Amino acid sequence: MFSCVGYGTKASEQPLGPFSFERRDCGPRDVQIDILYCGVCHSDLHQARNEWGNTIYPCVPGHEIVGRVARVGAEVTRFKEGDLAGVGCMVDSCRTCAACKEGLEQYCEQGFTPTYNGNDPSGGPTFGGYAKAVVVDQDFVLKVPANLDLAGVAPLLCAGITTYSPLRHWQVGPGQKVGIVGLGGLGHMGVKLAHAMGASVVLFTTSPGKSEDARRLGADEVVISKDEAQMAAHANSFDLIVDTVAAPHDINSYLALLKRDKTLVQVGAPGEPLAVQVFNLIMKRRSFAGSLIGGIAETQEMLDFCAEHGITADIEMIAIQDIEAAYSRMLKSDVKYRFVIDMQTLQ
Amino acid sequence: MFSCVGYGTKASEQPLGPFSFERRDCGPRDVQIDILYCGVCHSDLHQARNEWGNTIYPCVPGHEIVGRVARVGAEVTRFKEGDLAGVGCMVDSCRTCAACKEGLEQYCEQGFTPTYNGNDPSGGPTFGGYAKAVVVDQDFVLKVPANLDLAGVAPLLCAGITTYSPLRHWQVGPGQKVGIVGLGGLGHMGVKLAHAMGASVVLFTTSPGKSEDARRLGADEVVISKDEAQMAAHANSFDLIVDTVAAPHDINSYLALLKRDKTLVQVGAPGEPLAVQVFNLIMKRRSFAGSLIGGIAETQEMLDFCAEHGITADIEMIAIQDIEAAYSRMLKSDVKYRFVIDMQTLQ
Repeated sequence: MFSCVGYGTKASEQPLGPFSFERRDCGPRDVQIDILYCGVCHSDLHQARNEWGNTIYPCVPGHEIVGRVARVGAEVTRFKEGDLAGVGCMVDSCRTCAACKEGLEQYCEQGFTPTYNGNDPSGGPTFGGYAKAVVVDQDFVLKVPANLDLAGVAPLLCAGITTYSPLRHWQVGPGQKVGIVGLGGLGHMGVKLAHAMGASVVLFTTSPGKSEDARRLGADEVVISKDEAQMAAHANSFDLIVDTVAAPHDINSYLALLKRDKTLVQVGAPGEPLAVQVFNLIMKRRSFAGSLIGGIAETQEMLDFCAEHGITADIEMIAIQDIEAAYSRMLKSDVKYRFVIDMQTLQ
Repeated sequence: MFSCVGYGTKASEQPLGPFSFERRDCGPRDVQIDILYCGVCHSDLHQARNEWGNTIYPCVPGHEIVGRVARVGAEVTRFKEGDLAGVGCMVDSCRTCAACKEGLEQYCEQGFTPTYNGNDPSGGPTFGGYAKAVVVDQDFVLKVPANLDLAGVAPLLCAGITTYSPLRHWQVGPGQKVGIVGLGGLGHMGVKLAHAMGASVVLFTTSPGKSEDARRLGADEVVISKDEAQMAAHANSFDLIVDTVAAPHDINSYLALLKRDKTLVQVGAPGEPLAVQVFNLIMKRRSFAGSLIGGIAETQEMLDFCAEHGITADIEMIAIQDIEAAYSRMLKSDVKYRFVIDMQTLQ
């Protein structure tokens, strides 16, 4: 074990602050990474505040990690000291279930080991990327393309893969019309990725002020979702809609925009159930689905795709000391489009 | 036009009674059928009582029609006088849209012409099968296998195809575990058909008294859906669940029983929205879908499948004069499992 400096909290009502904790030593199959940047995901806030009721304290959030390899175990073949490396939402899984065998570790039947708030194989909780270093089995470490802005890569590890995976699973490509609901951390990645895949992209937002930015990011059209006439003009026309909104909202108005046999996939996870008008599904054999991040191989594929297309997240860099202010702004959707912590600010 | 004797109603509060109306004459591409049997679908009651708010009066319900061809138009090639024939929920469609071209007339982009409460091409409303005769374009007339009990065939035209189509679309076969929710007109057909397709069938019901009958119909197992322990024992194990329940109910407990990437398809259509816990979808990339009857070619395929496997509906025969009593019993789910009108009782 070694002592690692991070930023964390010991209780739901306690703001995040400097926190030293023990990391496992770099084992034979481990990669030890000096963290350069860590994206700030809404999950970090949910977990720190125990809003899902399952937080293990002390809690060090962060699962959008980019850094440089500081050390590798004797059996590590995929990385060497000095390599760029990334870690997303998972640091391990059972590796033996059908899902793991298919490279879908995010659906591991035993439950994957989350990057924070999980059970570290060496005992104790896992601690996330709001820290100077992290130690992860090489099979769960991603290769980070050198041609991309490293801070902008960090959010790809969660927001990027969360939108990339459903776009790939539902086979988005040229000639297709894809809707992205919401222009936040996930939504802005969805627009960029769907556009890069060759689809015609429509961004749905409640904020007319986001139109120009959405077009800059790659949207071919912006629909103000409160405008019934604008919505109606798109009835029965979408091949896929990726809904990134985590707040309660009316999805029936979106279901009605899908072509026959097409899918609305929810990647934002509202805590309250969403009301589904069954007729909306029955009359066109439509589906309402969900999707969770992506597997390790697919995450690597996404990073390589982003390298090829020059895609990173649009970010606002912060010092770790500003994390609570960033959380407050995130709650007001006041960020374009992801906060990323410059880990050099952590001493 | 010719005068046809039927059973119908002129207003939502008026019980069904004898009613004479005009049918179009048998045109060059039409088949005129003397109706022998007509199944009683819950939709008939909804429409007669204007419970969907769109009823055209006078209304003659009935879309599970079996009869014998009395006359054919000069250009009719598929039927001749004396043939057995069936008519389901559709009597026409645009025939030019993508759905129609794919043989999915039920999803016709112009809206198919329903067997009753639609607009007859000759003018005026379409009238359904609670009548002595019906005139239908040959392309929407089904061939009825001679080896099956004709009264038991009638419900196949709606309840049968409504469950057959999703079982086929989601590719049910041997080695798969399929759930059917509800043991009514649709549910009992779902059990029979899924069993005949070689799947392992689990019937979900709130009524312990239905267990024995469900097994007789082909269920391998019966789960009392109110029993949380029984439900939990089936978590993550289903390849498909077909939900036939048209009343409000909790679908989240069923979604949790699906394997990763699998679908719960709703064929019963509750008027109120159903509350969907999005986590149930996201955590296993599950889908919640809908399905509407089936196309004409698929309906014929279903009838041929039933002929091959000796499948008909379990029915209770009634005289047309007992239709209101049948409706009352149907509302209490007091029928095993479909009422069928013996049209010889209509004078």
